[in-house]
Amino acid sequence: MKIKSSFGPSYKEFEIGKIIFLAQEKPMKLMSGAEIKNFPLAYETYGELNSDRSNAILICHALTGDQYAASTHPVTGKNGWWDFMIGEGKPIDTKKFFVISSNIIGGCMGSVGPKEIDPNTGEPYGLSFPIITIQDIVHAQNLLVEHFGIKKLHAVIGGSTGGMQVLAWSVLYPQKVNLVIPLATSYRHSPQNIAFHEVGRQAIMADPNWCHGKYLNEKKYPSNGLAVARMTAHITYLSEAALQKKFGRDLQNKSGFSFSFDREFQVENYLHHQGFNFVERFDANSYLYITKAVDYFDLESDFAGKLSGAFQEFSKNKDGKFCVISFSDDWLFPPSEAKKLTHALVACGINTSNITINSNAGHDSFLLENDTLKNTISGFINRIY
Amino acid sequence: MKIKSSFGPSYKEFEIGKIIFLAQEKPMKLMSGAEIKNFPLAYETYGELNSDRSNAILICHALTGDQYAASTHPVTGKNGWWDFMIGEGKPIDTKKFFVISSNIIGGCMGSVGPKEIDPNTGEPYGLSFPIITIQDIVHAQNLLVEHFGIKKLHAVIGGSTGGMQVLAWSVLYPQKVNLVIPLATSYRHSPQNIAFHEVGRQAIMADPNWCHGKYLNEKKYPSNGLAVARMTAHITYLSEAALQKKFGRDLQNKSGFSFSFDREFQVENYLHHQGFNFVERFDANSYLYITKAVDYFDLESDFAGKLSGAFQEFSKNKDGKFCVISFSDDWLFPPSEAKKLTHALVACGINTSNITINSNAGHDSFLLENDTLKNTISGFINRIY
Repeated sequence: MKIKSSFGPSYKEFEIGKIIFLAQEKPMKLMSGAEIKNFPLAYETYGELNSDRSNAILICHALTGDQYAASTHPVTGKNGWWDFMIGEGKPIDTKKFFVISSNIIGGCMGSVGPKEIDPNTGEPYGLSFPIITIQDIVHAQNLLVEHFGIKKLHAVIGGSTGGMQVLAWSVLYPQKVNLVIPLATSYRHSPQNIAFHEVGRQAIMADPNWCHGKYLNEKKYPSNGLAVARMTAHITYLSEAALQKKFGRDLQNKSGFSFSFDREFQVENYLHHQGFNFVERFDANSYLYITKAVDYFDLESDFAGKLSGAFQEFSKNKDGKFCVISFSDDWLFPPSEAKKLTHALVACGINTSNITINSNAGHDSFLLENDTLKNTISGFINRIY
Repeated sequence: MKIKSSFGPSYKEFEIGKIIFLAQEKPMKLMSGAEIKNFPLAYETYGELNSDRSNAILICHALTGDQYAASTHPVTGKNGWWDFMIGEGKPIDTKKFFVISSNIIGGCMGSVGPKEIDPNTGEPYGLSFPIITIQDIVHAQNLLVEHFGIKKLHAVIGGSTGGMQVLAWSVLYPQKVNLVIPLATSYRHSPQNIAFHEVGRQAIMADPNWCHGKYLNEKKYPSNGLAVARMTAHITYLSEAALQKKFGRDLQNKSGFSFSFDREFQVENYLHHQGFNFVERFDANSYLYITKAVDYFDLESDFAGKLSGAFQEFSKNKDGKFCVISFSDDWLFPPSEAKKLTHALVACGINTSNITINSNAGHDSFLLENDTLKNTISGFINRIY
């Protein structure tokens, strides 16, 4: 089933692809207590499910990612965000594995979220959409996995916000996943990261075109606020060294200072480009909801301050293994947090590999082609299968 | 001479204190080529100038600081920002030293800047105010120093943006200052720091109440944009560890999540407080001008990529000495940059002390009382005098 959807300042229409309606019989209860039922989840699959349904790998996308992990993005026309990783003959080889990639709930690429029409009112949900958590996102993914009749996933893999979903899978469905591969993520969102998210949310909400969340009804769009939010976030996605190496203090097509407020440093131009490209493909309210879900994530406090408590159930899965991957110059989710996670896993007696990959692109490194990354994931998922 | 001035969303009036009009006879030429003449500079002094005018210390304030280093701020009613450092019996002892602290040009506490009335039009300058640089700021300070008949400053001291002014003093007036004390600063603004500034400027300019810089004429104020800019900046003023220690993931007066977009983490509340307090005491256009001046600062490229070139003239000042102070957990101006500065100074044969103070408050550490900081500065300025 393909549906058409539109959004962004230009309200451009595009085709979403596969959509399934979940929780049709019984509503899904969210952590907040709210319920959602008969809700759409948009997804892509790559490869074929084998007869005993044992070759499925779930890919979880990051904050502003989507289901188009290895297929062309309908809005941008670009290759999938993990195109180098997933496909025939690639590290996650679709000749062998059945790969599922869904748009998270709260997202804006076809899954239920603030931009979608509330069937009860016939209008976009906007802020009447319930607050969601990483755990809620995972419960919805589980319904999709059930739809395929998959009893156990071979692996769950994802980076950043996707890595939090991966961790939540091992906690919520410890017997339903064998290999757990969180990348560039943490067991909890740090106060500094919450602070950056809150600044982004405030920038969106300060934009009068946000209209208290009702911009779709007003046919407006908070482009400026969303672009500022994205620019701030982008600084955190690269490292100081990466920015130095990529741009330094080089000027944009100029030999001297303009002595004006024009963009003149290349780094300023890069941020603008990132900010204003983003608004063409992402919904501002979705940005609010997903950043909030990430801020709430804290497995340590969920288990009364004892992180290893989160993985007690998973430790009973005799085929369960972890591969925790971090990147040396990621300051958003530094290797020190991956190490703390690894300690908790090892304390539970879980077979765990911890790999810190030398990187020079900061947090974004998990999205960039890298032989060590490819070999690590390929080796880990093939070793056992 | 005291003048009244008003600004901020409430257009509250307050008394500025001492003002002098500089460049009355001959205009001062700015780096951009523009000229300013007969312009006001607001300042405070502490202590008495001795008969041979040899006991003067110039204090240079940071980005959003002002001349009230050791006197009550007329808007906030708070003590001066370096009250613990300057005064009778304090490290910079006003029984011994004559301390001058002026509001930088481009600022908003009485010195000429975008908020002041352009005598040519009778309206606030707004964006017709010329772009300024750190060097321009220093040239204006030099006119004030000349007004006092001071031939040579005993010391120039300042942190962050103030530290850049301190460095510029040693480059522009190498024979007019003996002791140079830059704190928590760098010889150039890094691409990451430029990026954070640009996000702040974009947040201000995205606020419709900014009115393309003419908000004073319209009796409006871009509070939301300026608050977002300040919130972003505040994240960079503390360290990850400082935020963890100060707030962790603690909730604000709540025992559980609210599942709403209210501020619920303490760190969110702190940012709001910082953001919205700031707009009551600072001018949004001044924020644009001063951040731009800081972004332009780069002594290395000014001297064709050879930082030591900047200090060749100062090395001929036989009484000239540097004390370069950095803070261990300052990630905005990390100790590594202070080290590079020190190497360049030592390469010129300049007597240089380099001190990295163990800190846990990030960049803000230079504004917080600390015995090592007090003893270092006190020792250095008294050793010679």
